[in-house]
Amino acid sequence: MKNVTLKDVAKAAGVSYATVSRALSGSSQIGSETRERVLKLCDEMGYTTNFVARSMVTKRTNLIGLVVPSVDNQFMSELAYHAEVSARAHGYNIMLCDSGPDLKQEKTVFKLLLGRQVDGILIVPQSSKSYDNLKSYLDQVPTVFLSENLRSQPQSYVAVDNSRGTYLGTQYLYELGHQDILYFGQRPGSTTHQLRADGYMKACHEFDLTPHFFNSEYSRSSIQGGYQLAKELFRKPLDCTAVFAATDSNALGILTAADEMGIDIPGHLSLIGFDNISATALSRIDLTTVDQPKRDMAVQAVDMLRDKIENGTQGYVHQILLPTLIQRGTCRKLDPSK
Amino acid sequence: MKNVTLKDVAKAAGVSYATVSRALSGSSQIGSETRERVLKLCDEMGYTTNFVARSMVTKRTNLIGLVVPSVDNQFMSELAYHAEVSARAHGYNIMLCDSGPDLKQEKTVFKLLLGRQVDGILIVPQSSKSYDNLKSYLDQVPTVFLSENLRSQPQSYVAVDNSRGTYLGTQYLYELGHQDILYFGQRPGSTTHQLRADGYMKACHEFDLTPHFFNSEYSRSSIQGGYQLAKELFRKPLDCTAVFAATDSNALGILTAADEMGIDIPGHLSLIGFDNISATALSRIDLTTVDQPKRDMAVQAVDMLRDKIENGTQGYVHQILLPTLIQRGTCRKLDPSK
Repeated sequence: MKNVTLKDVAKAAGVSYATVSRALSGSSQIGSETRERVLKLCDEMGYTTNFVARSMVTKRTNLIGLVVPSVDNQFMSELAYHAEVSARAHGYNIMLCDSGPDLKQEKTVFKLLLGRQVDGILIVPQSSKSYDNLKSYLDQVPTVFLSENLRSQPQSYVAVDNSRGTYLGTQYLYELGHQDILYFGQRPGSTTHQLRADGYMKACHEFDLTPHFFNSEYSRSSIQGGYQLAKELFRKPLDCTAVFAATDSNALGILTAADEMGIDIPGHLSLIGFDNISATALSRIDLTTVDQPKRDMAVQAVDMLRDKIENGTQGYVHQILLPTLIQRGTCRKLDPSK
Repeated sequence: MKNVTLKDVAKAAGVSYATVSRALSGSSQIGSETRERVLKLCDEMGYTTNFVARSMVTKRTNLIGLVVPSVDNQFMSELAYHAEVSARAHGYNIMLCDSGPDLKQEKTVFKLLLGRQVDGILIVPQSSKSYDNLKSYLDQVPTVFLSENLRSQPQSYVAVDNSRGTYLGTQYLYELGHQDILYFGQRPGSTTHQLRADGYMKACHEFDLTPHFFNSEYSRSSIQGGYQLAKELFRKPLDCTAVFAATDSNALGILTAADEMGIDIPGHLSLIGFDNISATALSRIDLTTVDQPKRDMAVQAVDMLRDKIENGTQGYVHQILLPTLIQRGTCRKLDPSK
């Protein structure tokens, strides 16, 4: 298979190499009739610009590496979608890598992208340990993280204000009359999860509620994990009127377990999640949740990365976006007379 | 920002360039103690292999372009996940492009990937028109399509047997006692949709049922589109006992409309979808559907593409995978006495 070259087009058009080149660059040194004829021929013959040859000259590849754990996860695929569209609008292509289940794989794909001479990397880190995991490579390539997991490190990131999100959700439950709110599914070793728990604690303190936790031992949030954990929770009599799930996946697992065990949501138990993944909006799910502005996160991360790549901007920025409470059907107002 | 080179490592280790190179290639010309010391240093200093320099020699980029319409669509993101994992296992990276809403965008990203000198392209085409749209470029790069949309063209593809899928679903409804089955949401201009409709027709013919269609005018299947169309359908009295939705997105839209209008599924109406996207498995959705084996499709497409890239295999292959009926909770057995 052979690529169609400028020379091929010139030959077919019966003009010089320079004329084709001028037609493609929009030069005014050739007539508009010739230009249009040449461009039409480029299209018909399937000519494409060779970006690899160009990058030899510019020393840029115009490639951005995108590293996410499990792109089939809804939150990740929505982020990836917006990052790709935004990067492409600015002349960059996305090289996608899945960092799979562990830190080892994350390091492997990060190295691989570096070796690909990407201009920069956007990464949703595995955990707070990702900084140490990638430290020796972070000086070699502009990098922007998409997570609050690295908030104590001198690294740029864009993330939602996780702590404010759980604060808002807890406040909402309190205003509906709930006094016994259980925080469900906090994962160990995740700064993001710690921050979400902090926001819940802050609200409890402010509204004089006693915090209760039912933590997860799973290293990743999933519907299945949430389901297992909820089955365990529901084994004993409920001593709360509302559950705040650390993630929507957990909340979806809780819904399934509750349905199986005849616990009516929101009749017996109110439920709120976090992330606003697309499945939560389905009418039969209708989960009240906290929205992460995924499009804004992706767009701002691409802009921040471009600034580092194109202007050589040093230092680091922590860009925090505001979460929004999405009121749907899984939270109930408690009757104050009871 | 400067990449760590072999020379940097050699200097730090106090050995020659050749020794570092030998350590990395696993050569037996150096002692195991030296090799381990050098490899440890490579890791600590953040050395990575320069694949761009290597590709100058091999004339391969080891890049596969992946083109999908809307990677935030669940079906596409699951395909992308499996394609990325499978490609990487064979030493290829994925360059992801979203072909957005139309043929123009599809052509733009295809050209862009060609210009990136990718070794091959995996593409979920926009529609049956994608062949004409991309024709002038298909000779220049090994390409495998992920869709039956191009079945009449001399192009390689991997796809599920769409017609068999709807046949299986219709047969299942017939065996549950349904005689009036409506086919819902067929899109114009899509070969895939035509094939699905064909399978339904074939089953109707075989079981002596009268086919009924309620077609879509939308150019893409979506939950919202299915919802609008279902509202229209439910305006008149129902003259069917079951609906076969052309896609799961359509089926999810039907569920929402039915809930709003008090139509009990499966009590009043049985419902079956197609694709088995992950949301259909949620307990509150529990949609009976036809599974497309997404992992197998991705793995086989990557293998087929590798065969073209690595062995220069010419000609084309149509690889058809078998669909499976997934029985869940939205179909009801009709009482024959009524």
